[in-house]
Amino acid sequence: MSTNRTEINQLGEFGLINRIREQVTLTSENIIKGIGDDAAVFTPTTGKKMVMSTDTLTEGVHFDLTYTPLKHLGYKAVMVNLSDIYAMNAEARYITASISFSNRFPVEAIDELYEGILLACKMYKVDLVGGDTTSSLSGLTIGITAVGEVDENKVTYRNGAKEGDLLVVSGDVGSAYIGLQLLEREKSVFKANDKIQPDLEGFDYVLERILKPEARKDIVKLLADMEVTPTSMIDVSDGLASEAIHICQESKLGVDIYEDKLPIDPKTVLTAQDFNLPATTIALSGGEDYELLFTVKQSDYEKVKGNPHLTVIGHMKDKGAGMNLVTRDGKSTPLTAQGWDAFLNKED
Amino acid sequence: MSTNRTEINQLGEFGLINRIREQVTLTSENIIKGIGDDAAVFTPTTGKKMVMSTDTLTEGVHFDLTYTPLKHLGYKAVMVNLSDIYAMNAEARYITASISFSNRFPVEAIDELYEGILLACKMYKVDLVGGDTTSSLSGLTIGITAVGEVDENKVTYRNGAKEGDLLVVSGDVGSAYIGLQLLEREKSVFKANDKIQPDLEGFDYVLERILKPEARKDIVKLLADMEVTPTSMIDVSDGLASEAIHICQESKLGVDIYEDKLPIDPKTVLTAQDFNLPATTIALSGGEDYELLFTVKQSDYEKVKGNPHLTVIGHMKDKGAGMNLVTRDGKSTPLTAQGWDAFLNKED
Repeated sequence: MSTNRTEINQLGEFGLINRIREQVTLTSENIIKGIGDDAAVFTPTTGKKMVMSTDTLTEGVHFDLTYTPLKHLGYKAVMVNLSDIYAMNAEARYITASISFSNRFPVEAIDELYEGILLACKMYKVDLVGGDTTSSLSGLTIGITAVGEVDENKVTYRNGAKEGDLLVVSGDVGSAYIGLQLLEREKSVFKANDKIQPDLEGFDYVLERILKPEARKDIVKLLADMEVTPTSMIDVSDGLASEAIHICQESKLGVDIYEDKLPIDPKTVLTAQDFNLPATTIALSGGEDYELLFTVKQSDYEKVKGNPHLTVIGHMKDKGAGMNLVTRDGKSTPLTAQGWDAFLNKED
Repeated sequence: MSTNRTEINQLGEFGLINRIREQVTLTSENIIKGIGDDAAVFTPTTGKKMVMSTDTLTEGVHFDLTYTPLKHLGYKAVMVNLSDIYAMNAEARYITASISFSNRFPVEAIDELYEGILLACKMYKVDLVGGDTTSSLSGLTIGITAVGEVDENKVTYRNGAKEGDLLVVSGDVGSAYIGLQLLEREKSVFKANDKIQPDLEGFDYVLERILKPEARKDIVKLLADMEVTPTSMIDVSDGLASEAIHICQESKLGVDIYEDKLPIDPKTVLTAQDFNLPATTIALSGGEDYELLFTVKQSDYEKVKGNPHLTVIGHMKDKGAGMNLVTRDGKSTPLTAQGWDAFLNKED
């Protein structure tokens, strides 16, 4: 953070909006009006369906500013939302950002937050078209709404899986949770003795997974290039097991997930051991992975199997078969959603 | 509020989402998927432009729960956003709602809030297609994003006013501010002596203006029926003067506003006197009126002049003439924006 501190009330709301407006470069030719009027105006692409999603990150619940850089937080807030758009097999196009913050935050802090938001927009070719900045009595809240577009025959819901379909997940799972455990551990150490500097060397990957995740836009493109349209899809925000259960419930099916197929980063496995946490549980219930979990027809197996970004982890069964994890020793155990729930995990 | 108290963590986030989902009846045939997937999916109306706006209400900054019923608050949160859509001369179609709240709120309170949101949707023929419910460490925050549609030749910006255009405002202004003063006064009285019951009889109109405002959808329809397309438009949320200044600045013009033309409800004038507040200042700077302020060509004067919902309050001038209030005694005084700014009016 810069050493200068400018109080927000030196600028006022309009001053702040103008400051943000000046930093925004619009890229889409479909935008007729971005920030600066009562509403943004854009032209929907002819023949496309629109998708729309919203998600809010709240201080003390979704993030801890003692170890979260504001620029990363802005970036992540956008990712969390784009992930939902990609989970519809859609292309993200526009976002609005609503930020509430107390007077503990100077203008420089809000600048950093927007730097992250705008970097995310640039990297993912999405335009910030509007928003709202307002004060709060305490804490920071970031609400993003994302709008995307998709061809009708490509849009993918949670309820489209069929019996026999393969269950596929992108990337790996569990690392974000391990990253969070590391940060929490170092925070405790630092609280106990503030002369001890955090020891996080060599943990870049797991830390990036929790602090600056990437939404899987590339997977939507990959699927299109491979000419695979998933039969169902969801993003992995609350934990793989919880999301698989959503697909099963919405599609009225059961599932077998194979423990030995779960894609877990080797360092995550090792670090989980240090924490005395079973890697399988973390992979299934860790949450915040922002990977895509989807089903494809068996006939798409050849297209999917060799791809380094994709792992077939199970297959869809009749509802009566239940939702199960098949463990390494071949036993079947019911899948439980111990995924992250903002209300059940509350600290206060 | 009901006497039962159900804790949120008895339901969890998914339980709460399902509870809300069950209460929603979708009305638009354009909606393919509402609440219940990663994102909502809808078909844009062929040939229309889309408009999108977002606004957040924060406890302690935008509302005080000691005198704001939660149902009214939910209703108002929607109105604040629809008002922005109507200010583009557009039709509001879809909203998402993001609610953050601490564990001081039981399920019954959240039900009341959604009752208000859904009543607003019903009254204004808008569909709730998605959202997010999450916990916060303290307080209640409601973020709404609204999407609307409009014909390209009807969309109205802040920057389209021309010299000589007439400045018109719908309804009346200043009453919401007086309603707020009354509520704050009764709150102080009650704090000093909790045996004294609030004395708010006969103040229905001003109280409704602050607690349960209506967005002016009817004005958008009226203008269409009269075949008047405003040259510029903005909604009056921060105060008439502040909004007039926005139109001037964006349109690069000046303005003369006539004090004797300002539409102020008679009871508001009387109550302002009781508070020793000048009615003109309140009308210009009170804020939260959610009326529409717009400019029309002089040739539309005959269509506008006799309408009881519309008042011509001034006309647009060259930029060099400045932005002025012409007082009752014929003197010209510079217009100042003392409108409501969340950052400058902060209590803490």
